Amino acid sequence: MRLRLDLAYDGTHFHGWAAQPGLRTVQGELTAALGVALRGQEPEVVCAGRTDAGVHARGQVAHVDIETMRESPERLLRRLNGILPDDVRVRRAVEAPPGFDARFGALWRRYVYRVADAPAAVDPLTRRFVLAWPRPLDLDALNEASGLLVGLNDYASFCKQREGATTIRTLLEFGWVRTEDGVAVATVRADAFCHSMVRALVGCVLAVGEGRREPAWAAEILAAERRDPAVIVVHARGLTLEEVAYPDDLHLVARAEQTRAKREPAS
Amino acid sequence: MRLRLDLAYDGTHFHGWAAQPGLRTVQGELTAALGVALRGQEPEVVCAGRTDAGVHARGQVAHVDIETMRESPERLLRRLNGILPDDVRVRRAVEAPPGFDARFGALWRRYVYRVADAPAAVDPLTRRFVLAWPRPLDLDALNEASGLLVGLNDYASFCKQREGATTIRTLLEFGWVRTEDGVAVATVRADAFCHSMVRALVGCVLAVGEGRREPAWAAEILAAERRDPAVIVVHARGLTLEEVAYPDDLHLVARAEQTRAKREPAS
Repeated sequence: MRLRLDLAYDGTHFHGWAAQPGLRTVQGELTAALGVALRGQEPEVVCAGRTDAGVHARGQVAHVDIETMRESPERLLRRLNGILPDDVRVRRAVEAPPGFDARFGALWRRYVYRVADAPAAVDPLTRRFVLAWPRPLDLDALNEASGLLVGLNDYASFCKQREGATTIRTLLEFGWVRTEDGVAVATVRADAFCHSMVRALVGCVLAVGEGRREPAWAAEILAAERRDPAVIVVHARGLTLEEVAYPDDLHLVARAEQTRAKREPAS
Repeated sequence: MRLRLDLAYDGTHFHGWAAQPGLRTVQGELTAALGVALRGQEPEVVCAGRTDAGVHARGQVAHVDIETMRESPERLLRRLNGILPDDVRVRRAVEAPPGFDARFGALWRRYVYRVADAPAAVDPLTRRFVLAWPRPLDLDALNEASGLLVGLNDYASFCKQREGATTIRTLLEFGWVRTEDGVAVATVRADAFCHSMVRALVGCVLAVGEGRREPAWAAEILAAERRDPAVIVVHARGLTLEEVAYPDDLHLVARAEQTRAKREPAS
């Protein structure tokens, strides 16, 4: 039986999602908790967005295949939350619809990046997921630069290169608003992201937002299709995976097969 | 010269506002930071709401009298924030208008209490200022009970008794809403509060919200004018001082004198 788990975590004290020997990771904690809850079964937990060290999540989605379910998903959820440390929570657990795959089935991932660019906007209660920025940001400039990066493009300029992996993505949305509390909030939504891509995109447009660069510079960086040391990768602190979207149940199988074919070309 | 300081802090690791020998307090940290910034002057920091251990603030207001200001308030703010630990921030520093008194001049204090009463509402990113509650809460019942507690009353049932101190207060507002994320949020606003009053008010109506008591029970507790062991004082974690209001500058002196006369009867 495949379960869909909706997860939230404070990434501050995690070395990211992916299990690594000797390091505290979200996948590691979840696998261990499942091992206790399921008495020895330790199913692989597959997630939609393998977040980097320090990145948070409110709407992470994962699936696990469980051989023998002895209880309802709701009861398993309560037991898992009783076992897990309090910086990671299972917010929902349901039987997955046929063909559901948390990773390959996702239509898009939505991240939010939060920046406090004035003393009045710095809030000690939210400091773990809002980056404090020492200079004021111009929202219009940020939005102009961000808009130039949206579309179907090769995002090699914003990705860590990995042998043979494509860096072509569809950036569906990249825009900024300012909250009542004065925090600048970027929404970054794409079909998928490569490693550190959101933080490099934000780092690029922050240079524009604080007036060091013109908006057109962002388009030049994108067009270069290679990393430029002038683009900083901003701190993970401000980044949260907010939502992962899936097609309705009838289209799940088709979506997963289509994505798999695109990402994993026949070798 | 009197300064008005607007402050925010994560109360998790503070033993409340008031300086106590050997304990980490907000007043203690501020006084120490002012001592460094002002090279030895350690002015008394007077605040609007002396929060208990673990209680947070987004809109705390304080005043300090500084003998010799060698710089602008904005520059002092930046230096203080450079000295202070990151769980307390000065969000605004301005010269106070004539007659301003952070404590006696306040018209009202607004606190917010946040409760996550379902697994889906528990968010590891906000767990430091949202109380997780194991049973579902009925907002209508909460609002009915809370409404019965509003008014000009003797709140002895919700206050720690102190010799000779009045427990008569005007509770201006006490109501609940549910956020998009499913968190139940109480707004509690009064001219002033006595020690642990907000948490006892919330504890009282939570018994109604989870169905253990009828709304009318809240009115009975209030009318008894003495503490009842059935009323729990909820955990400080969920409580945040959000805002303190002052009259416009012209009425500051009159307000402070009026409050002082009411609170400190001639001995």
